[in-house]
Amino acid sequence: MVTTASVWDDVVRIRARSPLVHNITNYVVMNTTANALLALGASPVMAHAVEEVEEMVGLASALVLNIGTLSPLWLTAMEIAARAAQTRGIPIVLDPVGAGATALRTHATRRLIAVAPPAVLRGNASEIIAVAGGAGRTKGVDSAAGVDAAQAAAHELSRAHGCTVVVSGPVDLVVRGDGEVRVANGTPLLGRVTGMGCTATALIGAFAAVNPDSAAAAAHAMAVMGIAGELAAELAAGPGTFQAHFFDALARLSEADVRARLKVEGDEARG
Amino acid sequence: MVTTASVWDDVVRIRARSPLVHNITNYVVMNTTANALLALGASPVMAHAVEEVEEMVGLASALVLNIGTLSPLWLTAMEIAARAAQTRGIPIVLDPVGAGATALRTHATRRLIAVAPPAVLRGNASEIIAVAGGAGRTKGVDSAAGVDAAQAAAHELSRAHGCTVVVSGPVDLVVRGDGEVRVANGTPLLGRVTGMGCTATALIGAFAAVNPDSAAAAAHAMAVMGIAGELAAELAAGPGTFQAHFFDALARLSEADVRARLKVEGDEARG
Amino acid sequence: MVTTASVWDDVVRIRARSPLVHNITNYVVMNTTANALLALGASPVMAHAVEEVEEMVGLASALVLNIGTLSPLWLTAMEIAARAAQTRGIPIVLDPVGAGATALRTHATRRLIAVAPPAVLRGNASEIIAVAGGAGRTKGVDSAAGVDAAQAAAHELSRAHGCTVVVSGPVDLVVRGDGEVRVANGTPLLGRVTGMGCTATALIGAFAAVNPDSAAAAAHAMAVMGIAGELAAELAAGPGTFQAHFFDALARLSEADVRARLKVEGDEARG
Repeated sequence: MVTTASVWDDVVRIRARSPLVHNITNYVVMNTTANALLALGASPVMAHAVEEVEEMVGLASALVLNIGTLSPLWLTAMEIAARAAQTRGIPIVLDPVGAGATALRTHATRRLIAVAPPAVLRGNASEIIAVAGGAGRTKGVDSAAGVDAAQAAAHELSRAHGCTVVVSGPVDLVVRGDGEVRVANGTPLLGRVTGMGCTATALIGAFAAVNPDSAAAAAHAMAVMGIAGELAAELAAGPGTFQAHFFDALARLSEADVRARLKVEGDEARG
Repeated sequence: MVTTASVWDDVVRIRARSPLVHNITNYVVMNTTANALLALGASPVMAHAVEEVEEMVGLASALVLNIGTLSPLWLTAMEIAARAAQTRGIPIVLDPVGAGATALRTHATRRLIAVAPPAVLRGNASEIIAVAGGAGRTKGVDSAAGVDAAQAAAHELSRAHGCTVVVSGPVDLVVRGDGEVRVANGTPLLGRVTGMGCTATALIGAFAAVNPDSAAAAAHAMAVMGIAGELAAELAAGPGTFQAHFFDALARLSEADVRARLKVEGDEARG
Repeated sequence: MVTTASVWDDVVRIRARSPLVHNITNYVVMNTTANALLALGASPVMAHAVEEVEEMVGLASALVLNIGTLSPLWLTAMEIAARAAQTRGIPIVLDPVGAGATALRTHATRRLIAVAPPAVLRGNASEIIAVAGGAGRTKGVDSAAGVDAAQAAAHELSRAHGCTVVVSGPVDLVVRGDGEVRVANGTPLLGRVTGMGCTATALIGAFAAVNPDSAAAAAHAMAVMGIAGELAAELAAGPGTFQAHFFDALARLSEADVRARLKVEGDEARG
């Protein structure tokens, strides 16, 4: 059940515990995702050296892996970190940025899933289809494909790997086994700022750090992301001012904001 | 002829086609240039692994190479990507950040030009002089030298390599063979935000993706860059708020803005 | 003596000379620290290739080393750069991001200090304690430990290496030998934006470039950082808008702002 209370309980826990979220992510979004985690109330750390990732995972409450701007040495570091996270039992959240665009990225995603299945896999429709083995090629990291195109792929991946799968789009699809929830919060401006998908993935890491139900954590994160986006859009005159207001909105988010705006539907969502 | 109509036709094409611009660029500006391309209406992708750059170029409509924060492996990736771009016939735009400051950067620029001549080379006066073999040493990546100091070097490079050369400054000089156009749009605030030269280079990539006339594409990009800067400066209280308003201005730019503000002169600029 | 006049003299010198500050820093904050240096009036350059760092140091007036997102090749580059800076006699400012969190970072910090003692070492309390050999483990790069917990460690490091040590916190502690100054300027919002500690370190680089008294330079930088933060906080609605206003405040800072707000105390601070 995704409700105002379930969303808000997680936000309160994140703000109270400030969980350390270890990110091995791409160069483009490091600053943005760190700021989003800080604004939400979590504590971000970025570290990618093979010499230290295992030790850093040992301090963290969640591990976020993101394959944008991937290179082989970084993939090795992600594998080491993923194994360490699995051993410790902390959740892994995986973002297959650009899967389907190049063989490196598609194979890296499958390799990371094989090394240690993530608690949550989040991508756009093209990426999720590509990871599941579909033929659709992404145009880089953007995709206009609706989430419905990836519905079957998402359920297939969820059942095969026991993970929650999020397909981002105007309406986000959160899949776990045969169940699904749709989160309809958001604004088109989220698509006009780079790294907002990666930011959603990072926020899922913070929610998964405080909530062992990965499907609920993912749905809560997508709802908070979308609601903060809606609040920011009301103050923005374009994508530049939107980004600044988005961080403000994450930091200022109140239970009343969630109650007034939460839009979820599905077999696990109730009033 | 650089006119309101010629500038605006390109903007409309970029917004309609959303060309994929593949950037191999420096760490400092990746986020900024991705946001600028998104705000303009293009679709940015950053990828630098030697294992995937050829494949990514295969999806792109333009390739932007930028040697800030260069290291040898990244130079190898740029060479592979440049060859792939040449084979496919998509335009290459090259930014020789810091050429003249270190031998690595000067030699890397010359090597990249030798591997595959760019459609457009854009730098500040010191960088262009250094690439042409002049003795002027840059103070890092900033330069107060006026564009006129680099006029001869720009024409020499343009004739030698058959490329358009842009010398950025308070007035931008766009050179192709013996012809030249000057774009006088802009604001001093563009010099107070890091990566605005790199952003100009990235925007040239988007314009070159939709306009096979590289000199026109470069002039259009510099005009749009400058006009967006002027619009942002009117709303800004300093370089921080300027950057946010700059992205807004790129996204909101109208034909009326271009008509009211375009300032070009030269033997290829009319009415 | 840290006074309005001593702070302002340095700001005027930075704005007049625009010293080139060479940064070898982490991916997360490169953009932010470059913008802060530009806003202050300095000239930032980022370069990390072992092939060029010595040459780049040769052009610079200060070297800033920051071990966030460290990897072994970057450490090698930092060592080469540190030796070159020592040979040239330009100040080194070192930020031991995450020292204590992993062995790589703790050892790297000690190695860099051994290669060439910095003029200024700046960290939070946990990092400074870890560098001095204390057992306290940091939770990543954030720390709630007050600066007093690191007072003894700071004096020990200062005496052992002849450097100024800054412990950042709600009140910043600036230590040189047996002397110390406390700077009480700032706002909690500085802790809600990523890289603000790293930004303080970068600003110290600019001040050290124009002031050979490293303790004064460090105290002046921390005061300017804090005052710009206070000015920005008055205009901000959260961490996103705060960051934009912070850059504006650095660029617009006036002597009257310093006079009205400077809060320092200690055996080297006088009205």
